[in-house]
Formats: sequence, C-alpha cells, structure tokens
Amino acid sequence: MAERLSPGDTIGILGGGQLGRMLATAAARLGLKTHIFAPETDNPAFDVCAAKTVAAYDNEAALQAFAEAVDVVTYEFENIPAHTAELLAALRPVRPGPAALAASQDRLTEKDFLNDLGIATAPYRSVEDAGALARAVGELGRPSILKTRRLGYDGKGQVTIREGSDLGAIFRGLGGAPSILEGFVPFTKEVSVIAARGLDGAFAAYDVTENVHANHILSVSRAPAKIDADCAAAAMATARKIAEALDYIGILAVELFVTDEPDENGRLVQTIRVNEIAPRVHNSGHWTLDSAICSQFEQHIRAIAGWPLGTTRRHGAAVEMRNLIGDDANAYDAILREPGACLHLYGKAEARPGRKMGHVTRVLDHDG
Amino acid sequence: MAERLSPGDTIGILGGGQLGRMLATAAARLGLKTHIFAPETDNPAFDVCAAKTVAAYDNEAALQAFAEAVDVVTYEFENIPAHTAELLAALRPVRPGPAALAASQDRLTEKDFLNDLGIATAPYRSVEDAGALARAVGELGRPSILKTRRLGYDGKGQVTIREGSDLGAIFRGLGGAPSILEGFVPFTKEVSVIAARGLDGAFAAYDVTENVHANHILSVSRAPAKIDADCAAAAMATARKIAEALDYIGILAVELFVTDEPDENGRLVQTIRVNEIAPRVHNSGHWTLDSAICSQFEQHIRAIAGWPLGTTRRHGAAVEMRNLIGDDANAYDAILREPGACLHLYGKAEARPGRKMGHVTRVLDHDG
Repeated sequence: MAERLSPGDTIGILGGGQLGRMLATAAARLGLKTHIFAPETDNPAFDVCAAKTVAAYDNEAALQAFAEAVDVVTYEFENIPAHTAELLAALRPVRPGPAALAASQDRLTEKDFLNDLGIATAPYRSVEDAGALARAVGELGRPSILKTRRLGYDGKGQVTIREGSDLGAIFRGLGGAPSILEGFVPFTKEVSVIAARGLDGAFAAYDVTENVHANHILSVSRAPAKIDADCAAAAMATARKIAEALDYIGILAVELFVTDEPDENGRLVQTIRVNEIAPRVHNSGHWTLDSAICSQFEQHIRAIAGWPLGTTRRHGAAVEMRNLIGDDANAYDAILREPGACLHLYGKAEARPGRKMGHVTRVLDHDG
Repeated sequence: MAERLSPGDTIGILGGGQLGRMLATAAARLGLKTHIFAPETDNPAFDVCAAKTVAAYDNEAALQAFAEAVDVVTYEFENIPAHTAELLAALRPVRPGPAALAASQDRLTEKDFLNDLGIATAPYRSVEDAGALARAVGELGRPSILKTRRLGYDGKGQVTIREGSDLGAIFRGLGGAPSILEGFVPFTKEVSVIAARGLDGAFAAYDVTENVHANHILSVSRAPAKIDADCAAAAMATARKIAEALDYIGILAVELFVTDEPDENGRLVQTIRVNEIAPRVHNSGHWTLDSAICSQFEQHIRAIAGWPLGTTRRHGAAVEMRNLIGDDANAYDAILREPGACLHLYGKAEARPGRKMGHVTRVLDHDG
C-alpha cells in the first residue's frame, strides 16, 4: 500500500452526508475517485461518488470488500465503531488515525487528553451514576451541563442543569449513559480553528472563525473572528499542539470558547478554552469553499492522499457562512438572486426541522 | 414539464467528458442531480453523477428512458446528431435549444448566420468539390484554411493551404467532405467571450479572455484580455447579439480574432471578427471556477434550470488558466506545491498526446 496516492486512486469515505458529498467533489477536482460506505440507502454523497457500498458499519464482509476497493480510508464523522476502524486499519491506511478517533469519540477521554497536554477546557467531572452527578453539581455549581460521553452532536445527548433542576430525572433522561458534567464557561465568543496536518508533518490553518449557535446548532460562521491577535495566535498554537500530539493527518477542527479573564496585572485579556475537537472537516469551515484558494475539503483530500497541503489564504476582507436549516432552504430563489451570494444545497429530499439542508456564503469586500 | 427546476430535480447531460464532469459537480453544489448519457463505458463525468446511461446517441429506447428520467437536457458538445436532439426535445426541454445546435454544428451555416446578423467573420467560401476549392483559393488567396463543415475540433478536420499546396490532395485528405475555405485573418490576438443568457432573457458575460493556442489546442487563457475597452465592449455586444438571435439559454462561448484595422481616419483600431461559436461551457472559461463567485459551470446550470443568473465578478487582478495536455499532468506534484495554484485533474486514465488531462489556474494579485 503506497503511503501517497496517485491521480486516479480511490478514497474510501465512511459516511454519506453533506460532508462526504463535499469531500467527494473536492477529490474529483483533484482527479481522485471516491467510494462512499454508508448504511442509509439515500445519501447526499451518493450523487457525486464513483462507487458506493450500502451496509452497516459492523458488516465485516462489506467492510473488507470496501477496503480492498480503495487506497485510503477517511470518514466524515467521528463516531466510527472502534471495531470498524480496527478492521479497516488492518487493510488500508485510515486517516486521521485511531488516536484521533479515540480522543474525540468520548468527551471524558477528550477532556483528559487536552488537559494532559496543558490545554485549558471547561472544568469537568465524570458522571457514572446519579450519586456522582449530585457530587459533581456540588463541585461545579449551576448552571452546568450534563453530556453523554459518547454519540452527542448538535445538542443531542446534553442537558443544562439549572437552579431547581431534578438531577435524578435528568440523569434518567439521558438513559443513564456514562456522562460528564461540564462547568459553565462565561464565554464572550465561540470560535473554531480549522487546521490541517500533512503526512510530512506540515501544518496549516485557516483564519480563526467566529461561530454563532442557535438551538445548539451552528447558525452563522464569520472569518476572520473579531478577536485579539494574541488570542488568535493562541488558538492556532493550540490546534497545532493537538494535531502534533495525535500525529494527525487531515483536517482537524477545534472549537474554543473565548473568555475575558484577568491577567497577572488584573487586566482582562481574551483567553481560550477548548470546547471540543472534531477529527474531520467541519461546518464552521464551509466558508473556505468560496473564500479560499484551497477549501477545507481539498485540504483534507490533499492531506490524506499524502500530498502537499494547499494555501489557506482568504479572498475578500471577510466572509460569512449561514446554515440553511429545515425550511430555510425554501428561500433558495432569493439567495440565487442576491449578487455575490454563493448557494450550496445538499440534495436532501426532506426538510425536517433542525436538519442542515445547505448553506450560503457571502464574501465581503469590507471587514464585515 | 416545469419550465423551472426545483432543488432535487435531475439534469440530463449528453456527453461524459471533463465538461460534463465539471457541470455535474456544479449541479450538485446547487442541490440538483445529474444523469450522464454517453456511449463510452469509461468517462470522467461518471465519477460524479447520480445516474448514467451508456448507450449510442442513436439508441432510441435508451434516449427515451433517459429523457423520462430527467427534467431538462443539456450537452457538453455541439455535435449532437439532429435526430437525437429532436427525439429528446419532444419529451423534455433541451437547453440550449435546436437553433443553437443548428448554428454551431456546421461551419458554413454558422458563418452565414453570423454574417446575416451583420457580425464580421473571416471571408469564406463553400467548397463541395475540388473545382470549387480551386476557385475559392483563387478568390481568397493563400494562406487560407480548408475546414470540414462538420465535426471539427482542436484542429481536427482542417488544413492550411499555402503556396505550392496540392489542392486536389488536400481535398481528398479531408475525405472529400463538404467543407469551407476561410481566408487568412492577420489577427494580433485570439480572445473569447463566455456569456450566459437566462430563461428570462437576462444576459451576463465574464471578462473577455485572451487565448493562446499551440498545435490547434488551447494552451493558455488569461483574463482580463489586454485589449482596448472599446474592443472588449464590442466583443460582449457581439455575444449578446448572437445569444438573443438564437433565443439562447445557457452558456455561449464566442471565439474571436482581434485585428488591427484602419478606421475612417486611417488610424489602426482593434477590430473583432468571430472565429466560431460553441453552445456550451468552454475551455477558455475554466478560470471562472477559481476566480469568479459563480463559475461558468454553475452559470450554465442556473440558466438551464430556469434560475436567475449569477454574478460574473472576478477575484484578483488577473487570472491565468493553463491546460495540462498529455504528459503535462505528470507535473501535478509540483503544481500542488505551488502556493496559490489551483489544480484540476479530469480523472482520465491514459495520458495520450494532445489529450486534455486537466488544467491549472493561477489567480494573480497584480495585472499579470
């Protein structure tokens, strides 16, 4: 198995959502084929791939045939069952590698990993049962947030604990799953770093992006984030430290809180705490499709192909990306009429509430 | 049949080469599916389409099933057999329409159409036999160029007639096919206009592009063309006149010669003559993928979907597109390492001499 791919080789992608779809078109632009593996019969990425396998992630025969048909394996989401990743990794390079999956699948492991690296996070406690929850709330106070250790996204698997919340009912509401309690971080902004590390160890990051969530789902991203230069540099350095610790290959997304905290002289300075990491292309990096020479999708493909990283330079003074969630996508005609707006639709048939149907990017000539 | 498509609808594309491939990814970005119809089993566009039909262009059953599976039909080349276009047009909208195909498939019809509109071309004569060729050469002089009326591209089906050329041998060399003789145009530049016309009659054009050919194949395109503003405006106006005369829908490419000709005061001014038109996306518009908010591929999809046209505004001060022909594509690694270079490979397995394997775009911060 070659470490580096050649044009015409095939990238296997686990998962067939919009991230897989945008990865597949980026691969095609570079002359690489894609093979999507996903359990659903109807998938956004199936419209733009050279081959597909519809099978469950524990179907060993299907996984083996898939691995044999591709030259490298990547994924569009981090909740790959460990056994699936192991089986594939025995046959083909899996990039990003198993360390990245292990560090990001479990919120407790993730927080321990970051703090062991000296990277600040929210304060947290492991919660295995209702008694542990009561002790943790006693230590971290209210408000605080209880999250299942595994399989959470877009606000799923998390509950805010407020004054008067019934802890027992809340723990049962999450199915009694192993969880962590996170202390409240009084953040002034949420930002993310979309970074890449190549097979050769090269590192590159896009401008820090500022993110606004609504109902726990990303609503708007703007780049560059309006934060101090020192804070932006610290965010970049943090992403690099994480990528190097994981011997990472591909795009790594790091979500951070920015807080105003006093320095040794009592002056408030912008300080960062990592919220979570995602070992994949990320919604807050979608603006790079329209506003960077090399998008996050092309950058991920370059990295996992063992090819040199591309430039992360940005067009325009600033850029804004807005998600089209549920019925938002019905406004596509007005967006098409708007000069300079870049519309992206994901090809999903049904616009359910909370479902990401597309996004729109606006590249600005001024600083927003 | 709706005049306007909705997200999730399917665009049928005749032809599966790199133009079809880039149209398919542009359609996917807008949430539209593509179905490729092509006779070859291995095609660049097959890697990025939702459905494909491998059948000959005269396979009526296959054409009928294809038409029934799609919402609109377009094409990536103009040499669609008339019967194929008629059969499809009876079942679904074909965009651009039959008038555009008729005007561009036959070099004699094309020249007559343009001159009837008052648009200057090279002088030309119809050549049906060796005698007509001798008379035409007598009238237009040498050098002049004999071209078959149909099925020529990239220099195929054409021969330059020089002093001492054996006219009889040349005519037989083209198989005795109905041809036209074109007089020599002492051009100083070759340029093209990539224009679009929408279902609503809206017109938009990208900056005039300057083109350099080598061995009759496009080698380099640069935008904006270094021509006088009046000349650029005349080129745009010519494209608009053609589009309106054809009640055109989609991207129209117009290739023009720029000559220095004396005005009424004897002063040399840049003057245009149309070389040929192509009713499709065009190689000289590939730079728009990396240097325009809305690429020629997205613009074509918008137009044929009955959607509003996008903006043709350009990023950067200037942009250069260079074709990667045959072994040129072997340099992909060096191009990937070049900051700011945008690599496109078409996924073709075999790098034959003269075969377009990809292209590279360089967006410049200065005016080139």
